[in-house]
Formats: sequence, structure tokens, C-alpha cells
Amino acid sequence: MKVESRIERALTHLVNHAGRAGAPPSLAKSLSYAVFPGGARIRPKLCLAVAESCGDDQPELATAAAAAIELLHCASLVHDDLPCFDDADIRRGKPSVHKVFGEPTAVLAGDALIVLAFEALGQQVERAPRRAANLIRIVSGSVGMPFGIVAGQAWEEEDDAILADYQRAKTGSLFAAATEAGAVASGGDAALWRMLGERLGEAYQIADDIHDVAGDAQQMGKPCGQDALFSRPNVVHQHGMDGAVRILKQLVSDAIEAVPPGRGSARLQQLIQAESKRFMPRELVRDVA
Amino acid sequence: MKVESRIERALTHLVNHAGRAGAPPSLAKSLSYAVFPGGARIRPKLCLAVAESCGDDQPELATAAAAAIELLHCASLVHDDLPCFDDADIRRGKPSVHKVFGEPTAVLAGDALIVLAFEALGQQVERAPRRAANLIRIVSGSVGMPFGIVAGQAWEEEDDAILADYQRAKTGSLFAAATEAGAVASGGDAALWRMLGERLGEAYQIADDIHDVAGDAQQMGKPCGQDALFSRPNVVHQHGMDGAVRILKQLVSDAIEAVPPGRGSARLQQLIQAESKRFMPRELVRDVA
Repeated sequence: MKVESRIERALTHLVNHAGRAGAPPSLAKSLSYAVFPGGARIRPKLCLAVAESCGDDQPELATAAAAAIELLHCASLVHDDLPCFDDADIRRGKPSVHKVFGEPTAVLAGDALIVLAFEALGQQVERAPRRAANLIRIVSGSVGMPFGIVAGQAWEEEDDAILADYQRAKTGSLFAAATEAGAVASGGDAALWRMLGERLGEAYQIADDIHDVAGDAQQMGKPCGQDALFSRPNVVHQHGMDGAVRILKQLVSDAIEAVPPGRGSARLQQLIQAESKRFMPRELVRDVA
Repeated sequence: MKVESRIERALTHLVNHAGRAGAPPSLAKSLSYAVFPGGARIRPKLCLAVAESCGDDQPELATAAAAAIELLHCASLVHDDLPCFDDADIRRGKPSVHKVFGEPTAVLAGDALIVLAFEALGQQVERAPRRAANLIRIVSGSVGMPFGIVAGQAWEEEDDAILADYQRAKTGSLFAAATEAGAVASGGDAALWRMLGERLGEAYQIADDIHDVAGDAQQMGKPCGQDALFSRPNVVHQHGMDGAVRILKQLVSDAIEAVPPGRGSARLQQLIQAESKRFMPRELVRDVA
């Protein structure tokens, strides 16, 4: 099965399961709205690409890990868009969850997606206990305290946040979890694959900073100029646009080098090269090609 | 070890783990503030009481289940108190989490506590995979969609909520999970113990409705009169105070009868009788004694 279908099928199955007969209708609709149609699904694709490079001998496990990571990413977007954070009206080119369903339902939708992610991992425990235990540890670490997404978001509320810590937690952690989880689900070594995820996470964060300064809200499907508006750290403000693009190119190159040697490594390196071009606003692609 | 110390030690260990070196300071403090000092800890006590009745042959597993359930209860209180829900200034006799730490940190604290609960369960997977898989299923079902706490809270946003569905999801689900999890952690049969949790959950919800009408905010440590204020269903509005007290007495009696026969059943029945008196506003205790 193609990677894209594998991801969408797993997400559809989980979201339908959560919204099955007896569910409060608005919250059920909001879960589906928050997850479909997706963005680039870059984290679950990365997870499955690594799983395939490691042999993918337990595909159900890798698929569950990829889906759990995407559900947690969606949950973080729903909560980040809330009025008390970014107060964003638009996400993935359509009104944000709280704009459509109201703030209470948006809070609950984020909560429900977090729970659903762990429910999905829990369903794999009997199939492969040791791997599943590792997956739960990796995934919970990447979203929880003290180094996961919630910590990254919390650093925005602190006066003396260290930029690297903030970015590592806010974006890098879930990318690192995606590569580690793909490896662990397939019997690979998480430690070998962590660096790839970290570098891609940093690259993605810098691309996001560049978008926020130079991007086009319509093309991005979300508002731009948010970092300046909220006085948040942004690499373009610190290093200028040329500096930021240089750092991004270096990180993509580091990521490609961080792919451990093996059966699928050349294919994975090509995938990273191709996907990294999608990171950039169109008018800047020439410069990083 | 006494049940109370077992619960507090486990919660302390988990909250310290989440707030360890490197954590964003305010979010770390907010987690501790949300969990300590606790309320009655009635759900984890119930979980461990059932575990003991079932032999408690894997105490680490039962303790983790009890702690996870209490963390999820605390998370639900933090999110329920948010301005977009109850906008409650006071909880457990002190300012609510968002009043002290701000709304963004309160949203993140709830999220982090949900993640921490599943991290705690995940840590038990290798010790006892089948039981841990069941615990994750039971606990995620009791807080997630379509029948858990988030669903119960979501029914408040729906125009045509069915009172029984709403109360079962909002309060009953975590009580039922407490008895089921206590049984499963100790190799018992979840189905045998579910009824006890359900009846206690219903009793607790009715006691909470009575408190909301007749209680004293200072004694309760939270605001009263919220149901009328938010036009929420309340059994006292439907059946009058006498009717509500009669229903409560019947549910406590049903709960006591629902204790499966066995080694510790008499002791558990006494515990329920004693705890049920703490449900009631003091001036009404005479009537249900």
C-alpha cells in the first residue's frame, strides 16, 4: 500500500472509532475537521519511511506510531490556534477549529486527539510489548513535559527562553519521535535515527520562520507575521533572510548525511531532498535548489 | 504502605519526573499546583481498594493505574475551570490554575497531565503486557471519545443532551475506569467490577448536583450555583432536594450491593458506606445516615 493511503486509512479508522455512534455530534465533527484534509503529513511519512528503511516487519505497529504522531500534531495545532495562544482564524486554508466549533469544543478536540493517539499505541501492546512500550515512551516524551511540544509552547510564555531549547521542544521533538518511532516499530535502533529527525525538525522550524516573514498567507493556509506580532523568536529576525536560508540549506544537508547507511538509505535521502524543497516559499526555492 | 501514601508517592514521583531539570519553570510549577494538595483522591483510592480485593499481586501496576486516573481527573478540572467553560476562580479552596498561571499555561498543564498519565501506564507495559494493554484501553476509553470525560463535557455544548448519557460520560466513566482498572491490574475481571464504579459515579454526580444547589462554596473549595448559572442539567432541579437525596441513598445502597463477593468485600462495603457520607453537605448528612 502506498504510504499516503496507509496514513489516511489509519487516521480515518481512528477518527471514525472516536466519533462512533453515541458520540456528542459537534465534538465528533470537530475531530474529523481537525484531522482531514491533512497538511503535508510530513511527520507520519517520515516515520513510515524510516520504518521501511528498517525492514517494516511489523507494519501495523509502524502505522499506529505514524498515526499517533499525526494525531498529536493535529492536537497541537488546534490548541495553538486558540485565542489564548495565536488566536489564529485560519489553518490549512480553512477556518480554525475554534472559529467553526467554538472555543470549548476546540479545547476538548485537542484533548480527545491526545487520548486517541495513546489509545492507538495501546492497541499495539499485545502484538509487540517491548516495541510498544518504547513507542509510548518516545511519543509521550516528544509531546509531554519536560522536553516535548507542550514544553516548547510553554517556553513562549517564559521571559528568558533559550531559542535552541524552545525550538527543539516545539518542533524538533515530534520530528525526532517520528524517526525514532519508525525505527523502533520495525526493530531498529532509535539512537541511530534520532539525529535525522532532529536535523529535519530544526530545518522545518527555520523554514517555518522564513515563511512567517516572507510567506504568503494564502499559499501557507495560515496567517503570516505572527512571530513579530507576538514578539516570538524568529531566526530571520536574528540572522537576516540570507543567513536563515544558509542555515536551512546546511540543516537539510546535515539531515541527508544523518541517514544511517543501509538498504533504503539512498531512497530516503532522495525523499528528504525532494520534501525539503516543499519547505520553502516558492519565490525562494531557486535559492536553495 | 498505606493507600494514601501509595497514591501521593506515585503522583509526586510522576510530577517531579515531568518537571525535572530543563523544564519550562511556570508549566512545571503549574503541574504541581494542579495535583497537590489533592482533593479526596476518591478515584485512585477506589482503584486501589478494588486491586486489594483482587489480591494486588502486581502493586506497581495498580499504583500506576490509580495515579494515571487521578492525573486525568486533575487535567479535567484544570480544563473545566478555563474561562471558556466554567470560568471558575476557585478550585480545591485555592485560586484555579489559570487564575495563578494564566490561561495558556492552564491549557498546556491539562495537556501535559493527560500525556503524563499515559506515560505512567506505558512504563508498566513490559512488566505485564496483557494487563497494561487492558489498562490503556480502559483508561483511554474513560477519558476520550465517544464515552469518556471529554464527551461528557462536550454534551454540555449540545442542545439536546440526554441527562443520563451526559452524567455517565462526565463523571461515571472515570469511576467505572477506577474499579475496572483496579481489577485488571490485579488479574481480576473488569466486567465484574464495572457496576460498582458506575453506581458510585452516578452517586457522586448526584451528590455534586446537591452540593451545587445546597452547598457552601468555602466548604466545597469551589463555586456553587454553577449549574443554574450555565443552564446545565441538575438532578435537584428535576426531582427536588428530597428526590435527589432519595436517589443518592438508593445509588449508594446499589453500589454496596454491587461489590462482588470475595476476601475483602465486607471491608470494601464499609469503606463505601463511610466515604459516601463525605459526599454530602454537612447539614444533610443526618438525612442519609
